[in-house]
Amino acid sequence: MSDFVEKLRAIVGDKGLITDEQGKHPYVTDWRESFVGNALAVVRPANTREVADVVRLCAAEKVSVVPQGGNTGLVGGGIPQEKGREIVLSLNRMTRITDIDPIGYTMTVEAGVILKTIQETAAAHDRLFPLSLAAEGSCSIGGNLSTNAGGVQVLHYGNARQLVLGLEVVTPQGEIWNGLRALKKDNTGYDLRDLYLGAEGTLGIITRAVLKLWPKPKDVATAWVAVPSPEAAVALLSGAHAASEDNVTSCELMGRQGIDLVLQHIPGATDPLSGRHDWYVLFEWSSTRARREGANAGGLREKMEAYLGEAMEQGLVLDATIAQNETQARALWALRENHTEASKKEGPSVKHDISVAVSKIPAFVTEGLAAMRKALPECRPVTFGHVGDGNLHFNCQAPAGWDKARFLPHAHAVNAAVYDLVVSYGGSISAEHGIGLLKVDELAHYRSKVEIDTMRTIKRALDPQNLMNPGKIVRV
Amino acid sequence: MSDFVEKLRAIVGDKGLITDEQGKHPYVTDWRESFVGNALAVVRPANTREVADVVRLCAAEKVSVVPQGGNTGLVGGGIPQEKGREIVLSLNRMTRITDIDPIGYTMTVEAGVILKTIQETAAAHDRLFPLSLAAEGSCSIGGNLSTNAGGVQVLHYGNARQLVLGLEVVTPQGEIWNGLRALKKDNTGYDLRDLYLGAEGTLGIITRAVLKLWPKPKDVATAWVAVPSPEAAVALLSGAHAASEDNVTSCELMGRQGIDLVLQHIPGATDPLSGRHDWYVLFEWSSTRARREGANAGGLREKMEAYLGEAMEQGLVLDATIAQNETQARALWALRENHTEASKKEGPSVKHDISVAVSKIPAFVTEGLAAMRKALPECRPVTFGHVGDGNLHFNCQAPAGWDKARFLPHAHAVNAAVYDLVVSYGGSISAEHGIGLLKVDELAHYRSKVEIDTMRTIKRALDPQNLMNPGKIVRV
Repeated sequence: MSDFVEKLRAIVGDKGLITDEQGKHPYVTDWRESFVGNALAVVRPANTREVADVVRLCAAEKVSVVPQGGNTGLVGGGIPQEKGREIVLSLNRMTRITDIDPIGYTMTVEAGVILKTIQETAAAHDRLFPLSLAAEGSCSIGGNLSTNAGGVQVLHYGNARQLVLGLEVVTPQGEIWNGLRALKKDNTGYDLRDLYLGAEGTLGIITRAVLKLWPKPKDVATAWVAVPSPEAAVALLSGAHAASEDNVTSCELMGRQGIDLVLQHIPGATDPLSGRHDWYVLFEWSSTRARREGANAGGLREKMEAYLGEAMEQGLVLDATIAQNETQARALWALRENHTEASKKEGPSVKHDISVAVSKIPAFVTEGLAAMRKALPECRPVTFGHVGDGNLHFNCQAPAGWDKARFLPHAHAVNAAVYDLVVSYGGSISAEHGIGLLKVDELAHYRSKVEIDTMRTIKRALDPQNLMNPGKIVRV
Repeated sequence: MSDFVEKLRAIVGDKGLITDEQGKHPYVTDWRESFVGNALAVVRPANTREVADVVRLCAAEKVSVVPQGGNTGLVGGGIPQEKGREIVLSLNRMTRITDIDPIGYTMTVEAGVILKTIQETAAAHDRLFPLSLAAEGSCSIGGNLSTNAGGVQVLHYGNARQLVLGLEVVTPQGEIWNGLRALKKDNTGYDLRDLYLGAEGTLGIITRAVLKLWPKPKDVATAWVAVPSPEAAVALLSGAHAASEDNVTSCELMGRQGIDLVLQHIPGATDPLSGRHDWYVLFEWSSTRARREGANAGGLREKMEAYLGEAMEQGLVLDATIAQNETQARALWALRENHTEASKKEGPSVKHDISVAVSKIPAFVTEGLAAMRKALPECRPVTFGHVGDGNLHFNCQAPAGWDKARFLPHAHAVNAAVYDLVVSYGGSISAEHGIGLLKVDELAHYRSKVEIDTMRTIKRALDPQNLMNPGKIVRV
């Protein structure tokens, strides 16, 4: 084994190699500490060539490779298994932005670039990279692409998959596929790009990408809206497309329970409205057209105010506040984005990242809350998510005072209650977080044999030694 | 063999089986008569179950299956090979629209539904299905999806791949994969949907699809614009995004040579402008916001007129006319859409369906025309296409009076000249038509070994007997 480690060192140097337990710890543990694995070493290549050399060495020595980005995933996709000969291959030294083309609306980046850096670089060139999610300050683009990340602007711009033109991938054999094409149309055979995107590193390692950019919005309106029900939230969104002239970029639904956790655990968080309500919507509209200033001032804020006023008369809105500046808007967003952090501080929880057709959200929430309470009467449901995508984080916080040991034995029953309902609604058991280690059994259970067999066939064909992130997505 | 045919008959009945040469002829010949193949039989199943039964029978008997939609393709993708034991499996009896959900913005259709029928059904429900191309009156959605069709609205709505939520596919083993999910987000393993989309029937047969719908535009402005150069066309488009408030839905570039062919060969075609110009743009803007009528009348037509006026002052526009009603707009579109028909009537041609980055179009056209003339000095270049997608049909009409026999020996040199240039521009040798039989050798030549090997590996894994549309995309 020390021989293997020295061969790794010969490729990546001392700077690229971590072998002590303390140094490896943050790479073999996920941030919620739900998964703790083992790694022979953590390897941090400096460029694509080194990634390929490491993978070729591992293929020859039959050592598995677990690619890892910012390690912010929620399903253990980037964590090695407890048993096995695995290394963690972290992309966190590959942080170069190698090209920015504002005219062609593209940016070419290495896999380890932090999402926020990409957003800021685009903004500095008067462009937008629309992927946005709570972990954006620490997640990296390679992980975002490998998991086909979603986030809060999918409604308008699509998932990560829709934000990419080209990829560079190191195959399980350690070859480099240069698919870094900046083309809008290219019908030349199988869609390898979309196969690697969302494959969670099980078919190869994404090392670089050509990202799409958009014009930067010049006018943004953000509101915090109390609504009587999820049904009202769906109706509010439905009417907003026309009222905003197709400029709705986010529509986040939150139940009161999650807000309470945020107010309790996150320093500085305050309730934007005076009353207490069961359901809230965080609404954002944005347009590339600048708002008019001066005597004739006007823009999305005024349109949003008029629309929310009408909606209040129709009983769809109970109370609302519109951010008057960016600071206020950020405070509203923080209430939404701190849900996961607050839940972690409160204690153990079971997470369900599910999706159904948007129009079915209200019925699903009613039935789902009943099903969850039936499975564990003392549970505390925490519901929030991207209502415009039909995607809810339909979570179950452990009963107050319960620790992990007491709560976890009930997790399976809660999962089964929710997932059975999701499947009966024609929905998905993983809308945006992926499968990782967490949902391998559920995927095999809820999807058809032909679908699982097809995935296994692809995995076996492209990675016959099963060395790329083994145990994730499907077992082979 | 008659035993095999009787087994087919037992599955699909007399109505679903064609065995006589005359009856088979239209199914084994493409519409340009560039490809003529042989088939043991033409089989026309009535539903997915029959498709699966036919494929299972063929798998057992080691007979290849060539799936076929409206047979309007330009690369021979739906035509059987000359030698081999193949059947054509036509989806043209599977023409049911099984669900339309205007609230959820989806439509579920069988593979054989004609594209125009889908467009009209969407319109009858105040919705838009944006896929639009010259063959829309006879191509079918299954073929559109299997080739990831492009067309004239990709600029705004994307390729066929972006217009689909879910698929049903019959695998090479004759199993049915039900992936008919109407979900906006679903991160559950490998992206099988995008693998089947654009695979030209080589990995399975698309039998049904859940399509996405959009709001129907309420205001459309269409203009015919003479421009001094492709460079001016790109600049005109670039400024139009802001001027139209992001409502540019089509931007088609055409050289004079193609217009001359249309005026000569298509009855009723007339030149919308009095002067003769080298380059034209067909511009369409559309919005879901209705135009105002009466005293305060206004909408996209007025905005377009103002924009074209400014562009004329800047020298980007030489002359222009804006359609005043739908009849006029249709006449302008007919000039564009009849290019392929007119070229066919004129005689033989070599087609290049290429793409490069949009900003590189002007330089590419200049160099490309020179390269084509160098390869065949007497050639008549016919250039038209979707300038906003970077996608040109950069064709070469045979010199006047040349027949196929005289022209075809020069085709390879013309192809090579164009494709070498495309590749040096980082472009694609098939932007929207696909690979089929026509470009298998070119694909293998111009793409990296690792890319072709990966495609072959996928093909061999999913279709180990190589029975699904063999010889298309990659040879295994």
